Amino acid sequence: MEAEIEFIPEGTVTSAKGFQAGAVFAGINKTAKYNLDLGILFSKAPSKTVGLFTANKIKAAPVALSQERLPGKPVKAVVVNSGCANASTGEQGLADAANMAALAAERLGVSPESVLVASTGVIGQRLSMDLIEAGIKQIILSNNGGHSLAKAMMTTDTVSKEVAVRVKAGAEFVVGGVAKGSGMIHPKLGTLLCFLTTDAAVDTDFLGMALRNAVDISFNMVSIDGDTSPNDTVLIMANGLSGYTLIKQRTKAAVAFQQALNQVCIYLAKSIARDGEGASKLIEVVVNGALSLASAKLAARTVVSSSLVKAAVHGSDPNWGRIIAALGRSGANVVESKIDISIGGIRFVKNGIALPLDKKKVVEALKNSEIYIGINLNLGKATATAWGCDLSSEYVTINSAYTT
Amino acid sequence: MEAEIEFIPEGTVTSAKGFQAGAVFAGINKTAKYNLDLGILFSKAPSKTVGLFTANKIKAAPVALSQERLPGKPVKAVVVNSGCANASTGEQGLADAANMAALAAERLGVSPESVLVASTGVIGQRLSMDLIEAGIKQIILSNNGGHSLAKAMMTTDTVSKEVAVRVKAGAEFVVGGVAKGSGMIHPKLGTLLCFLTTDAAVDTDFLGMALRNAVDISFNMVSIDGDTSPNDTVLIMANGLSGYTLIKQRTKAAVAFQQALNQVCIYLAKSIARDGEGASKLIEVVVNGALSLASAKLAARTVVSSSLVKAAVHGSDPNWGRIIAALGRSGANVVESKIDISIGGIRFVKNGIALPLDKKKVVEALKNSEIYIGINLNLGKATATAWGCDLSSEYVTINSAYTT
Repeated sequence: MEAEIEFIPEGTVTSAKGFQAGAVFAGINKTAKYNLDLGILFSKAPSKTVGLFTANKIKAAPVALSQERLPGKPVKAVVVNSGCANASTGEQGLADAANMAALAAERLGVSPESVLVASTGVIGQRLSMDLIEAGIKQIILSNNGGHSLAKAMMTTDTVSKEVAVRVKAGAEFVVGGVAKGSGMIHPKLGTLLCFLTTDAAVDTDFLGMALRNAVDISFNMVSIDGDTSPNDTVLIMANGLSGYTLIKQRTKAAVAFQQALNQVCIYLAKSIARDGEGASKLIEVVVNGALSLASAKLAARTVVSSSLVKAAVHGSDPNWGRIIAALGRSGANVVESKIDISIGGIRFVKNGIALPLDKKKVVEALKNSEIYIGINLNLGKATATAWGCDLSSEYVTINSAYTT
Repeated sequence: MEAEIEFIPEGTVTSAKGFQAGAVFAGINKTAKYNLDLGILFSKAPSKTVGLFTANKIKAAPVALSQERLPGKPVKAVVVNSGCANASTGEQGLADAANMAALAAERLGVSPESVLVASTGVIGQRLSMDLIEAGIKQIILSNNGGHSLAKAMMTTDTVSKEVAVRVKAGAEFVVGGVAKGSGMIHPKLGTLLCFLTTDAAVDTDFLGMALRNAVDISFNMVSIDGDTSPNDTVLIMANGLSGYTLIKQRTKAAVAFQQALNQVCIYLAKSIARDGEGASKLIEVVVNGALSLASAKLAARTVVSSSLVKAAVHGSDPNWGRIIAALGRSGANVVESKIDISIGGIRFVKNGIALPLDKKKVVEALKNSEIYIGINLNLGKATATAWGCDLSSEYVTINSAYTT
C-alpha cells in the first residue's frame, strides 16, 4: 500500500503528539516582530534526537554545547533565543549556553543534559543571562505552542516558517517542523535554525540517515547571500508517542517517513528562500541532463547564488547571458553548444544560443513572484533543484545597519 | 644598483615607446559614457605577447580567437569593443571575431593573424559587423591614444583605468596598461579586460611567468560580485623599442621588471575594485599570520567577497561578527581564539573576542572612502591582500535592468 502524506492545516512543530512549546519576550531581540524572542520546545517523552550543525569553523557556543550532547541521552527539550547569536563569545559564551540549558531544565523539571540550546542574532555580543533567566521563568508550554516558538526564532525574517504533514501508512504518524533563516544562508546548511519533530518511533541510525538525505535536497540547496552562519543547527526529535511501529531502515514505513521528512524540509527550505532578506521573488532553478549529481547540484546552486542573476530577476530583466556565465564558472561539466534554458516554461536558449523570441513574454514571466529557471545540460541524466531569491535594494538597506 | 620605479603623470597603455591607440563611437554601446566604444591598440614593432584568459568554461568568441593565436607570431595590434561581449554567439560569433580582426588588420596594413580581439558588454547578442566595419575605418591612431582606448572599453565603469611607470635600472623602460571591469569580477581573473604594454624587450618565457606572478597578487585578489565573465582577458605586449637590454629570468633587470609589472597590475586591480558597480568605498583586506599562502588568500578573498561584510561596510556598521563568520567558512586554517581584527588601524577583536572599545571610533573609520581591514590569524607567517568594494543599493539598480 502506498503511504498517503497530507499537509496538516496550520501544522507546526507541535503538531506531532506529545510535543509542546511556549515563548515569551525576554528583551534580547529589540526588533522582535511579534514581541517574542525566547522559546522552549518540549517533548513529553524522551526523544531520540540527531542533529546537523554548521560547516563554519567558527562555531557558536550553543552549537558547541548541542553537538557535545548529541548523540547521547534522549532529549527532552530545546531552548532557543533570537537577537543574540552567542557566537564569538569565548569561554564565557560556552558557560552562558550551558547555563541557559540548565535554567530551562530547572523550569521543566528535567535533567540539564537532556536540554539542547540554539541562538540566532548578532555575532560577538554576550547573551544577557539576567534576561534569559527572567524570561525562561515566564514560559508556559502548550500543545499549540509551535506557532509562538516559530515567531520567537525570527530575526530579519518577515514571516514564521512552520509546517507539518500526517502520514497514513496503515496507522498514522506526524512529521513537522519550524525554521528560521533570512540571511547568512548558503549550502551547507542553508538554514540558521530548524527543529523537526515526529511522534513516530525511529531507529536512531535511520533517523540520522533520513535527516542527512532530506537536508541534502532541501537546506543544502538553498542560497540567499553566500554566507554561512556559525549557528546553523538542524535537529530532529522522535518521541514515539504515535504508537506507530518502530521505523527501521529498508522498510515500507522508512520510505514513507523519508518522503514525509523530505516534504517538510523542502517546504521549510523554500520558505527560507522566499523570505530571504529583502526578497520579493522565490527563484527555483532545476538542472536536468547533468553528467553527475555533483555537477547538477553545482550548476543549480551556482545559478541561484549569482548576484547578477538575482539582480536581473529582481528587475525582470531577461539577461540570460548571466545564467550561462554562472553555469560556465560553476565547476559543473557543461558544453556550451548543448545548453538549453527556459524561464517560466518559455524556452529561449537552445544549444547555447538565444532563440528568436518575444522578449516581452519572458519579461512577463519574470514578473511573477515565483520564478522557474529550467536548465538542460543535455549531457547525462542527473538532476538537481536549488532555491534562492532575488537581490533587491532592501537587502542592502537591511544589512548596512544591522547592529547600528 | 636598486631600480627606481616612478609613476608617469597621466600614464597609460601608450606611454611605452612605439605604442599607439585610437578609438571611435561605432554605435554598439548605446550608453557609452564618453561616446567611444571601439578602439585599436597598435605596436609599431611586432610584440612578443602573452595572455591569460577566463577560467569560465563558457568562453566568448574573441577569447577563443585570441587564445588560439597565442602564443604564436608576434602581435601587432588588439581591437576591442564595448557594448556587446560576442559571447554565447556560437559559430557566427567566432566568424565575427575573426572578421573583426581582419578588418582591423586591413585598416592597419598588417596580417590578420597578428591582430587579437577583445569584447565586453551584453552576453548572448550578436555583434553588428556593419557597425564594427564602419567604425574601424574611422579609427585614427595617435601616440597619446591610450586615454581614448581606455574610455572605449568602459561599460558600467564610471572612470577609465590607466597607468604607466618608468623603470630606471641603468637605462630606462616603461610598463603601462589599461583595464576595464566593474561587474562580473571575481578571482580568477578579477578583471574583464586588461592590456599591458612595455617597450622593454622581454624573453617570452619570462614574460609569461612575470604576468602570472603579477596577476596572482592583483587581478586574482579582486572581487566585486562573485561572478566570472566569459570574456576575461589579460594581455601583455613587449615590443623592445626602448633599446633596453633583453630581459631574462634571474637577472637584476628581471627583478625590476617584475616589480614594475606588479605595481601596474595592483594599481589597475585596485582601480577596478574602487569602481565596482555601485561602489562608494574601496575595501582592502590584509591577512597576516596564516599557516600557508593558500590559507591567507582564501581568508582575504572570502572576507572581501562576503555580501554581508560588504553591506556592513556600506552602512559604516562595525558588525565584525560577519568578518569572523566569513573567515570561518573560508576554508582557511583558522583558530577562533587566535584571531585579531582591526579596521582602519583600530584593533577591536583580540583572541576572537571583542575588545571593549569606543564603537564610534570604528564607525568613523568606516566612513572613509578606503577601508582597511586587518586580520591576524596568529598561526604562521603567510600573508595576502585582497581588494573589493561595498555593496550598495545602486549595485542592484545597475544590475536589475542591464539589458532592458
